[in-house]
Amino acid sequence: MAGNSFGNLFRITTFGESHGGGVGVILDGCPPGIEITEEEIQKELNRRKPGQSDLTTPRKESDKINILSGVFEGKTTGTPLMMVLYNKNVKSEDYNNIKDAFRPGHADWSYQKKYGIRDWRGSGRASGRETAGRVAAGAIAKKFLSQQGIQFTAYTLQAAGIRCKEYLPEEIENNPLRACDPKAAKEMEKLVIELKDKGDSTGGIVECRIEGVPPGLGEPVFDKIEADLAKGMLSLGAIRGFEIGDGFSVVDRRGSENNDWRDESGFLSNHAGGTLGGITTGQTILFRVAVKPTASISVPQKAVNIKGEALTIETHGRHDPIICPRMVPVVESMAALVIMDHLMRQKSIMR
Amino acid sequence: MAGNSFGNLFRITTFGESHGGGVGVILDGCPPGIEITEEEIQKELNRRKPGQSDLTTPRKESDKINILSGVFEGKTTGTPLMMVLYNKNVKSEDYNNIKDAFRPGHADWSYQKKYGIRDWRGSGRASGRETAGRVAAGAIAKKFLSQQGIQFTAYTLQAAGIRCKEYLPEEIENNPLRACDPKAAKEMEKLVIELKDKGDSTGGIVECRIEGVPPGLGEPVFDKIEADLAKGMLSLGAIRGFEIGDGFSVVDRRGSENNDWRDESGFLSNHAGGTLGGITTGQTILFRVAVKPTASISVPQKAVNIKGEALTIETHGRHDPIICPRMVPVVESMAALVIMDHLMRQKSIMR
Amino acid sequence: MAGNSFGNLFRITTFGESHGGGVGVILDGCPPGIEITEEEIQKELNRRKPGQSDLTTPRKESDKINILSGVFEGKTTGTPLMMVLYNKNVKSEDYNNIKDAFRPGHADWSYQKKYGIRDWRGSGRASGRETAGRVAAGAIAKKFLSQQGIQFTAYTLQAAGIRCKEYLPEEIENNPLRACDPKAAKEMEKLVIELKDKGDSTGGIVECRIEGVPPGLGEPVFDKIEADLAKGMLSLGAIRGFEIGDGFSVVDRRGSENNDWRDESGFLSNHAGGTLGGITTGQTILFRVAVKPTASISVPQKAVNIKGEALTIETHGRHDPIICPRMVPVVESMAALVIMDHLMRQKSIMR
Amino acid sequence: MAGNSFGNLFRITTFGESHGGGVGVILDGCPPGIEITEEEIQKELNRRKPGQSDLTTPRKESDKINILSGVFEGKTTGTPLMMVLYNKNVKSEDYNNIKDAFRPGHADWSYQKKYGIRDWRGSGRASGRETAGRVAAGAIAKKFLSQQGIQFTAYTLQAAGIRCKEYLPEEIENNPLRACDPKAAKEMEKLVIELKDKGDSTGGIVECRIEGVPPGLGEPVFDKIEADLAKGMLSLGAIRGFEIGDGFSVVDRRGSENNDWRDESGFLSNHAGGTLGGITTGQTILFRVAVKPTASISVPQKAVNIKGEALTIETHGRHDPIICPRMVPVVESMAALVIMDHLMRQKSIMR
Repeated sequence: MAGNSFGNLFRITTFGESHGGGVGVILDGCPPGIEITEEEIQKELNRRKPGQSDLTTPRKESDKINILSGVFEGKTTGTPLMMVLYNKNVKSEDYNNIKDAFRPGHADWSYQKKYGIRDWRGSGRASGRETAGRVAAGAIAKKFLSQQGIQFTAYTLQAAGIRCKEYLPEEIENNPLRACDPKAAKEMEKLVIELKDKGDSTGGIVECRIEGVPPGLGEPVFDKIEADLAKGMLSLGAIRGFEIGDGFSVVDRRGSENNDWRDESGFLSNHAGGTLGGITTGQTILFRVAVKPTASISVPQKAVNIKGEALTIETHGRHDPIICPRMVPVVESMAALVIMDHLMRQKSIMR
Repeated sequence: MAGNSFGNLFRITTFGESHGGGVGVILDGCPPGIEITEEEIQKELNRRKPGQSDLTTPRKESDKINILSGVFEGKTTGTPLMMVLYNKNVKSEDYNNIKDAFRPGHADWSYQKKYGIRDWRGSGRASGRETAGRVAAGAIAKKFLSQQGIQFTAYTLQAAGIRCKEYLPEEIENNPLRACDPKAAKEMEKLVIELKDKGDSTGGIVECRIEGVPPGLGEPVFDKIEADLAKGMLSLGAIRGFEIGDGFSVVDRRGSENNDWRDESGFLSNHAGGTLGGITTGQTILFRVAVKPTASISVPQKAVNIKGEALTIETHGRHDPIICPRMVPVVESMAALVIMDHLMRQKSIMR
Repeated sequence: MAGNSFGNLFRITTFGESHGGGVGVILDGCPPGIEITEEEIQKELNRRKPGQSDLTTPRKESDKINILSGVFEGKTTGTPLMMVLYNKNVKSEDYNNIKDAFRPGHADWSYQKKYGIRDWRGSGRASGRETAGRVAAGAIAKKFLSQQGIQFTAYTLQAAGIRCKEYLPEEIENNPLRACDPKAAKEMEKLVIELKDKGDSTGGIVECRIEGVPPGLGEPVFDKIEADLAKGMLSLGAIRGFEIGDGFSVVDRRGSENNDWRDESGFLSNHAGGTLGGITTGQTILFRVAVKPTASISVPQKAVNIKGEALTIETHGRHDPIICPRMVPVVESMAALVIMDHLMRQKSIMR
Repeated sequence: MAGNSFGNLFRITTFGESHGGGVGVILDGCPPGIEITEEEIQKELNRRKPGQSDLTTPRKESDKINILSGVFEGKTTGTPLMMVLYNKNVKSEDYNNIKDAFRPGHADWSYQKKYGIRDWRGSGRASGRETAGRVAAGAIAKKFLSQQGIQFTAYTLQAAGIRCKEYLPEEIENNPLRACDPKAAKEMEKLVIELKDKGDSTGGIVECRIEGVPPGLGEPVFDKIEADLAKGMLSLGAIRGFEIGDGFSVVDRRGSENNDWRDESGFLSNHAGGTLGGITTGQTILFRVAVKPTASISVPQKAVNIKGEALTIETHGRHDPIICPRMVPVVESMAALVIMDHLMRQKSIMR
């Protein structure tokens, strides 16, 4: 249980640093017989990779996926899939200036305290590039689940202070923010570009809908669906909050307003976001995550070095002014890993 | 991994339904040599038990703890502690009317769908009484950790729409809301009583501070401290959201505002809530959870029975108009279980 | 992962010492809808309990099972079953003389070294009584599996130097040794009584057959069926060896002799004992365990006390001259736990 | 828990098939600051690789290790080490004839039954080449543990019916059998060559000594040291039995003969093999495993194809007439993984 694995039956273990040999994942417990190609996985990875638009870092990363095991003649075999993205175009010298300094908002200092050693090149293990392995495994889960009618749709709901007013899923991939409302997206884009030009960054809210989930998934009492979703989401570096259904807005409500009533036609509302007692009801699962402003900015900042001395840090690397659009496929992937795992768990107790 | 266990090295497994033989916990992995008495554990349980004030259900439960194993001559032995609260004063007949009906906001329907069978007496396994086992184990974690200077303080930050304006920790146990601001507490109390008289309920926000945590706890990448805290909190039936540090309020901020700067004197702010990259920094860990209005109310509600037929449900049991005050010790306990587990994990890699 | 749990999906956690409040088990992950009564479980426990014959300790233990949770109206509900045997008739004063002394062949010394503290009454956690929880959970697994045509039959194959020559399963429960050959059983009995009269003990071999297991159970590469069986068996205090199929006798053989050939009619032999590559073939699983002579004897023995001083120990308690007959139901139970877990794991990957 | 991981805190997950992209391992939970080079790991892998002598298959495999992550400037960083051996010189066409046939003694048939699909090239996932990942991780454990005075020495004790009479550890690496007695080794060699010339194979016993283990390692009740060693050993494809200390030979003994007595000078014997109650005593841990004759032989054998039709199989590949010498480093590695994991577990409970 060393911290780099997620899931029980459909279980991933990721590895790699941004400037080592590569990053990737072992997916263990994948059911046999799933048709999968590197191209299908690559498609998801391309949604995550840098350089997609003006709103993402122009940093070029080699995001080419290589499946080294577990697939034979185009199908999963039931044995572990090891998938790796080799690191290329790494400019470690860019990071020489932070070798002995701890950047604000980064894990530099806490890793040093934990391990007494850290790979300081490009955030090392704490790099967002680690999530590529999650997306690769998530792509397989999503494919399997989509064949059972389960769909994952994440999108930027709010960014730079602007909130979407409409939900137009077909528009999500048509704007660089991956927002669900093209009008709001335009405003967001303008504000983000302004911040980018100042070397600054902003945050946002990513929302995710999971449709078609059968009732009965989730385990009492600790492995509730929302508990595992929350863990999956908070395991992403930039996420500072999670809420399911109406989330924090329920706190001022009355019970008589918040309970989802029901008649012969089914549920009359979905304040709960698709679960009761941690177990799916068959309604749409809906959750949101708070994405912090990217920590990497080029504004001068107060920091300390390894000797504890104060200094001013200015990092002129290639960074994302907002991480939400690239977070969208990652959120979908983590959600898919959770649902896949629980689907398999539920199968194990059925006759 | 069957859903009723939490933690890796300091690991609990809870059992029990509200109307069966009892509820309780096995705590496995407890370090040897901790001095502990049933009285110390009872004290924490008493903070959770019903009937403490006008704001909690007058339902009487036998919350007496019995340690059956793992303690010898007043000290833990390193072997599993089994702790049980036998069920007494159970009025199963109160629940006859819901035997075949699914109460809104409860897990009745989802359990039925999952298992094809459910113990319908008093919410069965989904009863809040299940948390007694967590509190019992948490009491031991809290004692161990307090000896290392780590303190857990949870309190009601917001209830019935009123938010605390001051943080006066010494006042928390002096008002029935367990709010950190006695003035706000008075207002909350008035509003909650009004709702109670109408047979309705409300929700709130519980905040928790963990002080004295050494830097370096938490595991990259999935078992980040905030990921495990989020999972622990969302594993509580009434919790709909979790946020750490400034949480959802960071989403509209700039990176230059949100990064916690540092100089020789230490961190200059704590927007992050005590972790960087999922690893503790030594700052206070601060998080909040959204508590939904109690689902059990006596207002008539639309529901269905086991045949799918519509009906109106009115439950005139003995229920809490707000669950926050009783949630406070539970939140502290879950937090203590997380920190204890990570402290032991960190020890295992140190020389 | 604190050492007191076994299994992944069908998972038990045992607790208790021989002289504390009781011993028992939480069974988590039990499929819902299994009809089970305390009587059925008691029947298995009675095969394990002391005082069954001249060959088992006359010590009286309360082996009455109590199911406190997870069963409703005679059926499992899918939630954890907690089952406890309260300790009664405990004579802790019998053990006063070993309070500060370390008995040969017992875990006294190693527990003291590990934990710095131990419950010295009646072997504490290392007592054979701990296995009652395994047997209780195993009884449920056996019932479930028998309905799917899977049968577990363990028996004493060898004892006090005498080996069975015939396999007559219907005779197993008809002799105090639980040997599969009544003639051999007579000889064994005579020799064991002689040793008992001298205050000494002996060991033996228990063999187990698992019939009706479908092909395809077992996980590459670490969770091979024989790996999990071996772990389960060596987790029993008195077991010193495990072998599957022809076991140690294959080492001098040629490959051409040892490979199990096959034709249209099926396998032509079963040297492998029912698995290939760790996965079941559908043939009978056959394994054997080496049971050491009971460590508790009344012959004077050299030992040391807690100060490291030499002394002579004579323990005149009530002990088993041979543990094999009582080990038989325990071996069956552990085997059933392994097969049940793997059956559920296999279900989880099937469409 | 999908079957391809081993260990709790020091945890490996292996991947790969003999004819896919490569085989390897993720080692998660490795303490930071261990100095390690690819050369040190390669040295251990070279002991495992084919083509070392007349007694091992002349098949050439690329056994070159590549560390892709988790090591920085020559030291482990605490993050996952991914180590891979790319597959080269693979002649998949050699296996065309077994594409639809199930070789005796191999996992072909059971994999097909389990998954409905299998990578039939060179035994696929069930290939002995999978153990390279274990050896790579084991090399790191061995290095760490050797710095704490813990040494692992495995060797061939018996082969082709010949048993060593002496224990001369310095001779082990000087004979192709890795036997501990050079005289016996000569005899073994002669017999093995004879069998090899006939296209047949033989088995043997590998014994392992672990010296310098501190007392107190091992967890009651399921994760006893011998239980985890047994599991580790039986997770190796060719192992059919495991025994610790005097193992199966204790079954005919008296308790008074078998108990290890003690006086001021320490233990007077070590029948138990270094553990009591599953916890180490500080004595040498001694265990033996039964290695079956290599299943791959060129003698004609009866088998069936995928349609269930009988056929005769003759495999004229490049195979080992005995696997013991190459098993020696694998046994040491698995033992080191077990001890390392338990050392870290013990650290976690100590103050």
